[in-house]
Amino acid sequence: MKKISDITIIGAGFMGGSLVKALRRHLPEVTLRAYARSKRSLIRLRKTKIFSEVSQDFKTVVSPADIVVLAAPVEAIIESLRYIKPFLKKGAIVTDLGSSKVEICREAKKILPKEVDFIGAHPLTGSEKSGIAWSHEKLYERSLCLVTADEHDRAAKVISRLWRSVGAKVVFIDPHSHDKMLSAISHLPHLISFSLTDIIPASFAKHAPASLKDLTRISDSPGDIWADIFISNKDNITADINNFIKALKGFQLLLKKKDKIGIVRKIELINRKKRELL
Amino acid sequence: MKKISDITIIGAGFMGGSLVKALRRHLPEVTLRAYARSKRSLIRLRKTKIFSEVSQDFKTVVSPADIVVLAAPVEAIIESLRYIKPFLKKGAIVTDLGSSKVEICREAKKILPKEVDFIGAHPLTGSEKSGIAWSHEKLYERSLCLVTADEHDRAAKVISRLWRSVGAKVVFIDPHSHDKMLSAISHLPHLISFSLTDIIPASFAKHAPASLKDLTRISDSPGDIWADIFISNKDNITADINNFIKALKGFQLLLKKKDKIGIVRKIELINRKKRELL
Repeated sequence: MKKISDITIIGAGFMGGSLVKALRRHLPEVTLRAYARSKRSLIRLRKTKIFSEVSQDFKTVVSPADIVVLAAPVEAIIESLRYIKPFLKKGAIVTDLGSSKVEICREAKKILPKEVDFIGAHPLTGSEKSGIAWSHEKLYERSLCLVTADEHDRAAKVISRLWRSVGAKVVFIDPHSHDKMLSAISHLPHLISFSLTDIIPASFAKHAPASLKDLTRISDSPGDIWADIFISNKDNITADINNFIKALKGFQLLLKKKDKIGIVRKIELINRKKRELL
Repeated sequence: MKKISDITIIGAGFMGGSLVKALRRHLPEVTLRAYARSKRSLIRLRKTKIFSEVSQDFKTVVSPADIVVLAAPVEAIIESLRYIKPFLKKGAIVTDLGSSKVEICREAKKILPKEVDFIGAHPLTGSEKSGIAWSHEKLYERSLCLVTADEHDRAAKVISRLWRSVGAKVVFIDPHSHDKMLSAISHLPHLISFSLTDIIPASFAKHAPASLKDLTRISDSPGDIWADIFISNKDNITADINNFIKALKGFQLLLKKKDKIGIVRKIELINRKKRELL
């Protein structure tokens, strides 16, 4: 397999920053470069001393790269594809850290030249924190990274090696299954958490028990990132919201009938599922 | 203020057990008695060595009590009122740990004799655990206990002293406000968590990220306890489910219109509320 020697990151925030810090440690022979979208970001990224080169010019950082990692909100990832396209070398691999995959993979296929591979990736970890200042080299240790490609593909092997080198377990999945699954296990939970924080009367919040704190913790997540995720996975999320509303209404009906046995039975099935699966 | 010398607990499980363990420590001069509903429970409670007396006979444990603490699911609390009624001494105070208050307070007023006071209480802490084996004397330290009575009432003062003695902060509230508030901050979150676990496809659950784990943690909560809570606070919960569905549909509409600015704005308001209040 080809040796990875030059990696360029576009969007070195919390997730991307954690990846490059881990790469610096586990693949010390690799040359790391970063794109900075502003003077301030340029200074901040240079200060980290992680990168051989930081530049506000796409050509400078993209043209030597074997791998270009796009670590930004979904829409910015798609925009970046257009910016980096003219400078990608033949045989380069472009990958990303986006939380939805169908739209990104489709756009990558449309935008990128034939002699460049795109391999979508989605590490299933994170934080409400943002920015490289909070990033850390252990973020991906024992985490799961979903790679939306055929595992026998040459470029997919390179990208999965990259993730394994920083401690992640790699699972291959197609983009549609990815988006359907993520809608249920991540996007819907975020929408629920946002909606719950939205409706809790302010005067009640000071008495919040642990249960409410658990359910509202992720409602701290950034709007720009989540608006992109929601819109790019709109159809799955819409279906999952409907599913979820149906489940709530199921409880509401049992309540209306004061059907204690029905409620107990339902909760006991849920208890079992929770213990076995979650 | 009258000295508390005899306390009897009916339903010494996780919550009630933690209370008596804390009382044993902080009010060592008090005589603690427990009612056991079965031979097995009698043996288990005697083994704890907390109680001067454990009995399967209501008269034995209720008649000497200054305070009778009902620590059971809502419906069982209401049933217990009938069982203890004939044996309560004049001036005794009956209190409880129930999670909804309107129904319990109304029934207590109906069932108990005039010369006995009922003071509802609801400590806002807990666990998915149940049973006295898991209970511990520090459960109520720095917790909040809602007491549904007039703070100038003699009996309310005794009960709030009891809770303060085990480290809880006491807040007085009327039963209707209590149930309205608890519906929003606890009962709705539990219904949401149950419903979410209910609809997550089993095959996706193994990839559950931290967000889903947070939101489904309390779906482990026992059905018999929660069925009672839901049914006894049915009207508030039904209204809150409707509110919550409206909030979800609000997001769904923004999604349908792919209104990124609208979604970002909404989430940013929610982020602020979360940071300031939760």
